[in-house]
Amino acid sequence: VDTVLSSAAKQAVIGPGQPFCIIGERINPTGRKAFGAELRAGDLSRVETDVAQQVAGGAMVLDVNMGAPLADEAELMGRAVRLIQGLTDLPLVIDSSIIEVLDAGLAAYEGKALVNSVTAEDDRLEAILPLVKKYGAAVIGLPNDEEEIPEDPARRVELARKLIDVATRQYGIPIEDIVIDPLAMPVGADTGHGIRTLETIARLRDEFGVNMTLGASNVSFGMPDRHAIGAAFLPVAISHGLTSAIMDARSPQIVRAVKAADLLLDRDPWGASWIAAHRAQQAAAQQAAAEQAAAAAARPSP
Amino acid sequence: VDTVLSSAAKQAVIGPGQPFCIIGERINPTGRKAFGAELRAGDLSRVETDVAQQVAGGAMVLDVNMGAPLADEAELMGRAVRLIQGLTDLPLVIDSSIIEVLDAGLAAYEGKALVNSVTAEDDRLEAILPLVKKYGAAVIGLPNDEEEIPEDPARRVELARKLIDVATRQYGIPIEDIVIDPLAMPVGADTGHGIRTLETIARLRDEFGVNMTLGASNVSFGMPDRHAIGAAFLPVAISHGLTSAIMDARSPQIVRAVKAADLLLDRDPWGASWIAAHRAQQAAAQQAAAEQAAAAAARPSP
Repeated sequence: VDTVLSSAAKQAVIGPGQPFCIIGERINPTGRKAFGAELRAGDLSRVETDVAQQVAGGAMVLDVNMGAPLADEAELMGRAVRLIQGLTDLPLVIDSSIIEVLDAGLAAYEGKALVNSVTAEDDRLEAILPLVKKYGAAVIGLPNDEEEIPEDPARRVELARKLIDVATRQYGIPIEDIVIDPLAMPVGADTGHGIRTLETIARLRDEFGVNMTLGASNVSFGMPDRHAIGAAFLPVAISHGLTSAIMDARSPQIVRAVKAADLLLDRDPWGASWIAAHRAQQAAAQQAAAEQAAAAAARPSP
Repeated sequence: VDTVLSSAAKQAVIGPGQPFCIIGERINPTGRKAFGAELRAGDLSRVETDVAQQVAGGAMVLDVNMGAPLADEAELMGRAVRLIQGLTDLPLVIDSSIIEVLDAGLAAYEGKALVNSVTAEDDRLEAILPLVKKYGAAVIGLPNDEEEIPEDPARRVELARKLIDVATRQYGIPIEDIVIDPLAMPVGADTGHGIRTLETIARLRDEFGVNMTLGASNVSFGMPDRHAIGAAFLPVAISHGLTSAIMDARSPQIVRAVKAADLLLDRDPWGASWIAAHRAQQAAAQQAAAEQAAAAAARPSP
């Protein structure tokens, strides 16, 4: 099944037969002190750079999170959505744990957004799914409940089943608008986390055929050389059934790994995208070299 | 099952629970004009550099191929094996399509070697398996016969079954000494080759639990940015059941990708190898910087 997101002018499709969907994770104050302080002061100017960098890096969808402590998150989310939709026509993910913030973001959004996220807890399902339905959005479902973030892939699949059942049967949200997060946890904390995530991905694919997304940076958290871990993890996860990830689109190594996975898994007809990206890279390098040479020639000799 | 190779002083273990076994592919004149000419002249001096580079890059086993046209391949193989065993204690793969060359290499070799390779053709099985048995070696089996290199994973599995049956029943070679090559072909020639190889790997694992190896560089042949393709392909193949590869151990990007796969698939307890490799890399970079600074300080100012 394909999950189709849209802005006013553009679609992004998440699906098993599609090129992997890169969701840029950058518009988020978590771990960014200066950005957090600016958001508290109502200043969104930094968002422009964030959007430009991710678009340049190859993001196909952008995640928007305004969760800075003490900031007026709902007001910021509405403004951020309008601002970003003026800067790019990529579809957006409205990312918050607060219902009012999701509502403000969805109200401001033009098109079909992806809501990040709802858990399998009853009160969360009851609060968030009506919003998803009202705005005709798609939604990311996290297979955890009030008691636990389950380790066992079988338990994650069970909670995903609950999420899917409630969303489809009680709220009439079509299964193609439900994107399950198989839960990626740091291998630095427990080296078994990787295979549990991969097993969950394969089971979710086999059982429900749903689209999936996860926070790819989590996997390498706390380890050195994080980009190399992400660049190995994503192709493996894609080969098991992952169809999108919220990830660092500014890392050429990770983005290139995702594109290589598209090529290797036969989602890049004739390798055309791979070859085109290589040529664009070469052309950019040549232009940079030419500019450098011109600048050196224009400089007075010492 | 574990395939245990050895030199006089050292073992290398290929197995699904082991760190991925990197077999260095470099000692081979294919595509190396100067090396080919030297081999024809009986000159093996270049091998020393090749060995050193691959050991430094992280090879655990070295493939040795002396197949230069018009060279005395059997004589060269015997000499090369003795020379290399004087340079390193890594176990070796004796690689040739000529029976006499395999015999010469195995006769010269101290320890338990891996023979590369036998196909599922009757005359090849009859000629090579007695040698494997005689020297107590392990062997790489290629699932193709006189008629075809099959595209269909099911047909590859069928030919692998024939290889395994003949080797174990008729020659008493234990299954742990049979390493099947699932056949990696260039995605640049056909973008379906990647998934056919991956499906073959998964089937061979599920059906026989055998160890596997393949020529990893084949996958990216003819495409730009080959190392990025190899660095994505190997982790995916490993997650499907590949336990070793004949690969370019001189590429840090590809070797690092393999180590990341070990970490992600829980074959690097506590991530100790990953962290140690990172520290060694940092230390090497620091030393290089210090040496550069010392050299600059010693230089007379202009």
